[in-house]
Amino acid sequence: MNKKLQGYIAHLSELDFSKMYGRDFFLTWEKSGQELDAVFTVADALRCLRENNISARIFDSGLGISIFRDNSTRTRFSFAAACNLLGLKSQDLDEKKSQIAHGETVRETANMVSFMADVIGIRDDMYIGRGNRYMHQVVDAVTEGYQAGILEQKPTLVNLQCDIDHPTQCMADLAHVIHEMGGVDKLKGKKVAMTWAYSPSYGKPLSVPQGVIGLMTRFGMHVVLAHPQGYDVMPQVEKIAAANAAASGGTFTRTTSMAEAFEDADIVYPKSWAPFAAMEKRTQLYDAGDSEGIARLEEQLLAQNADHKDWTCSEELMKKTKNGNAMYLHCLPADISGVSCRQGEVDASVFDRYRTSLYRQASYKPYIIAAMIFLAKVKDPGQALAQLESAGAARRRFF
Amino acid sequence: MNKKLQGYIAHLSELDFSKMYGRDFFLTWEKSGQELDAVFTVADALRCLRENNISARIFDSGLGISIFRDNSTRTRFSFAAACNLLGLKSQDLDEKKSQIAHGETVRETANMVSFMADVIGIRDDMYIGRGNRYMHQVVDAVTEGYQAGILEQKPTLVNLQCDIDHPTQCMADLAHVIHEMGGVDKLKGKKVAMTWAYSPSYGKPLSVPQGVIGLMTRFGMHVVLAHPQGYDVMPQVEKIAAANAAASGGTFTRTTSMAEAFEDADIVYPKSWAPFAAMEKRTQLYDAGDSEGIARLEEQLLAQNADHKDWTCSEELMKKTKNGNAMYLHCLPADISGVSCRQGEVDASVFDRYRTSLYRQASYKPYIIAAMIFLAKVKDPGQALAQLESAGAARRRFF
Amino acid sequence: MNKKLQGYIAHLSELDFSKMYGRDFFLTWEKSGQELDAVFTVADALRCLRENNISARIFDSGLGISIFRDNSTRTRFSFAAACNLLGLKSQDLDEKKSQIAHGETVRETANMVSFMADVIGIRDDMYIGRGNRYMHQVVDAVTEGYQAGILEQKPTLVNLQCDIDHPTQCMADLAHVIHEMGGVDKLKGKKVAMTWAYSPSYGKPLSVPQGVIGLMTRFGMHVVLAHPQGYDVMPQVEKIAAANAAASGGTFTRTTSMAEAFEDADIVYPKSWAPFAAMEKRTQLYDAGDSEGIARLEEQLLAQNADHKDWTCSEELMKKTKNGNAMYLHCLPADISGVSCRQGEVDASVFDRYRTSLYRQASYKPYIIAAMIFLAKVKDPGQALAQLESAGAARRRFF
Repeated sequence: MNKKLQGYIAHLSELDFSKMYGRDFFLTWEKSGQELDAVFTVADALRCLRENNISARIFDSGLGISIFRDNSTRTRFSFAAACNLLGLKSQDLDEKKSQIAHGETVRETANMVSFMADVIGIRDDMYIGRGNRYMHQVVDAVTEGYQAGILEQKPTLVNLQCDIDHPTQCMADLAHVIHEMGGVDKLKGKKVAMTWAYSPSYGKPLSVPQGVIGLMTRFGMHVVLAHPQGYDVMPQVEKIAAANAAASGGTFTRTTSMAEAFEDADIVYPKSWAPFAAMEKRTQLYDAGDSEGIARLEEQLLAQNADHKDWTCSEELMKKTKNGNAMYLHCLPADISGVSCRQGEVDASVFDRYRTSLYRQASYKPYIIAAMIFLAKVKDPGQALAQLESAGAARRRFF
Repeated sequence: MNKKLQGYIAHLSELDFSKMYGRDFFLTWEKSGQELDAVFTVADALRCLRENNISARIFDSGLGISIFRDNSTRTRFSFAAACNLLGLKSQDLDEKKSQIAHGETVRETANMVSFMADVIGIRDDMYIGRGNRYMHQVVDAVTEGYQAGILEQKPTLVNLQCDIDHPTQCMADLAHVIHEMGGVDKLKGKKVAMTWAYSPSYGKPLSVPQGVIGLMTRFGMHVVLAHPQGYDVMPQVEKIAAANAAASGGTFTRTTSMAEAFEDADIVYPKSWAPFAAMEKRTQLYDAGDSEGIARLEEQLLAQNADHKDWTCSEELMKKTKNGNAMYLHCLPADISGVSCRQGEVDASVFDRYRTSLYRQASYKPYIIAAMIFLAKVKDPGQALAQLESAGAARRRFF
Repeated sequence: MNKKLQGYIAHLSELDFSKMYGRDFFLTWEKSGQELDAVFTVADALRCLRENNISARIFDSGLGISIFRDNSTRTRFSFAAACNLLGLKSQDLDEKKSQIAHGETVRETANMVSFMADVIGIRDDMYIGRGNRYMHQVVDAVTEGYQAGILEQKPTLVNLQCDIDHPTQCMADLAHVIHEMGGVDKLKGKKVAMTWAYSPSYGKPLSVPQGVIGLMTRFGMHVVLAHPQGYDVMPQVEKIAAANAAASGGTFTRTTSMAEAFEDADIVYPKSWAPFAAMEKRTQLYDAGDSEGIARLEEQLLAQNADHKDWTCSEELMKKTKNGNAMYLHCLPADISGVSCRQGEVDASVFDRYRTSLYRQASYKPYIIAAMIFLAKVKDPGQALAQLESAGAARRRFF
């Protein structure tokens, strides 16, 4: 047996993740540390199988439904790749071209698209207070549908980004960090700067900063959230971050100085987002159909953003980090000064230096998604991985 | 062998459906009673295989093309699920983003999208006199293409809704009724009320009411078609319904009273549709490019609809049905009063009570589509089902 | 073993195409004659397998990404069919609905969509000087991504049409000619008329005429390029055609008379295109965002086109060809006079007479694409084909 795979399987045997079977993945902080560890481990094992040209198809047929309530290339492709790796066909529900927009209830649509679906991936990050709730409604609906014999299976939900968390992104980010640092045990004591950065566009989702502080605080790291006055994230997630840090032996602090956050940081994650309160207001305006109000809010927010153009990941700031050499993370695409915009989140030279690392960071996402599905669908993941390897079906032949 | 599956296979051996092999499915009334029975039976058998985790992949590769000349979530997903169950990849041709709109002839497109296609599913229900004709043109074209050696196979057409019939919907509806009633033999003598209902939107297709009266009259049932003055369906389909009823020992009657239709009914199917004559006129206006005329017609039809707001499936009307407890059918989505519109086809409390039943009704559609494909593509369906079971390839492993 | 297949495999053993392994397909003139021969041969072999119901799945899973920077039904379906034949799932990147439009760099997107991609097919034919360059950028990016361990495989590029060449189209065209003529050896000495034809639309890509003169000059044929004054194609491709002709013992000539080109021709390919210089100007105008200039240019070009309505493939002109009976080629869809437009590229009666031949011509494209993939992905194609046949896995069972 492949040594690396053997190691992953051995590690899985030490973890308790029995409650993931048959369940869904909403938020990282609803999962135990061992459950998250299982996701990282299975993701690595699936990647190892693929690198060794061993098929990981646990499905002969079946559908992976994706529902995107926002445009998305990367997440769409990551989800399609994960489904394909396991033998599922991804089938997209794009709201704009479906009847879902014409007043169909969530419950009905959830069942109608799930007749042969093993997995449902949803991205719904635009309106505060809505995305995660919508995902729960979908899961409740298909659970009822399954219990009533309408569906032959309960599809597993994978949260592909909601208003609260972005678990597949943040776990991919962390998988990358773990690999770069050389193991989960190396995380303890490291300083992470999750900081706001200026972008000429507005209204970027809060799910990444929230997901990062909700996840990275669980490993004994020192997580600093930095943003200008008024750019708060959801208070409930800050509470979770603080509790996580206390439990893991790390810290969670806040600052309104980007420089302070970068000081001696091992990892920096400078990224734009919209103020929580503004997003809440926008949601209310959309509810009220107040398009004039929305336009006014947008103008206001752009002006507010423009006051903080100095919040950018410059070469100068990077020098303040540990050995001037911190890991630079971004969920991509980034607003790169002089490249994708006049002024943005990061200097072009910084981005350039980290490009390979950033792409590698992104490369973990399909495996994280596949691992979440695997753990929900496979009774004994360790044994299944071993059997997949010993069966040794080639993913690709004659090469 | 699974007892249920054994029963289905035994039943198939008593039926003559030899003419379905290599053929297409346009209209239910072009098929014999035994052929329809074969569709129901194979649909049940395929569902049984899936529920027992046995792969029904009869294709290792191949395409199922879908051509939608109208938006559709549910039918699209049902077709994708049916194709996936059998091992085909569904590939959508969306007219709006293809060259088909730029004057390409039907014949050419039909061949161009069929090079490796085993199945073509078409939805074309908008214009009276067009949809079914279009499907025949496509089948004629690919038949010629096959005979000329252009295509390696003649793709099988599945009518996913035309201007005349909606066979996959109505057969799914009836499969549900058969299961609820406890067998095809229980249909005889039952009263079915196919009735118009008010909807604030206009121009809903006639294919469902037509499909229902064309199909349900074949089983000795008493089918009543109810609608306000002026909401006639195609006369040719009414003739077929009458002939069917005469042959099967049932009846086909008409009324302009919803209450009369509901009186003592075993099954009610209240649903909005547009008057046949108006749809014919609209088709002519579209042909003439008379957008002003279309707008005027729309206004007229909405006003005409509004005269019949009392045509709604209320609790009061439901009380008139057999034991106040008839089966309530709908193809979904329904216009539910106070939920999806101010006033619509059905009271919210009625809809709520039947929700599980309605979802189960819909759940038959992917299997009906798969059965139509199976019967057209498999030489000896009974034997094939038996072999699929005895081979016992798992659809999903390690669970 | 199937005799035909045996012949293909024997022929492959005589060819040197070792450099195609792991590589990409940009332009036909970048490939050796033996390499092109290998593509034709593998295409025939794959078609032979399919006609004999033998699975050609060399992939158990994996993605074939398609990037279309222009609408396309036929190419999209051909690519999907080719991928499906080999076991890959095609996944489309449609620029308009992705983030690619929002300033993402090519390099980034190329990697982000390629995490589990074995193949990338790109169509980018609109702007002179751009399409082929874009394809190279994508290939460079994924090659770097592979070398850096970001991607587990280097996806193979298949050029589905660029500004310079349309290799899958022109090779399908030639595959058809070879089959009709009875072998590659029959091409020598044949006269091919690649001629401009009038179309009421403007701005059709140059890639087909360029691809045809760049490819057909390699087989000892007499290739004539005919167009009105001012409708030149790229000078660099004319140079290549001339050099090819010199090397192959054929000729490459130009004329401004359609009649002269048709005179005694064995093959005619009358098709509209835009002047190279105008397309270059249009690209500059798009770069400058000069929409007024674009509108003016369009008007100018339409007027210029209208001066040449006599450039049409009429019955009269067809009579001038060899025995009045030349092969008539078109990449479809054609502008057919009195059918798809008032006056166009070809008389309806000519088109009608060649319809079956035209559809057969198109039917080679999926196999050409599949062969390009096969040769890039399979180490020993001849042996692989033999093993696929001897394994004899059914593509379709129970029929």
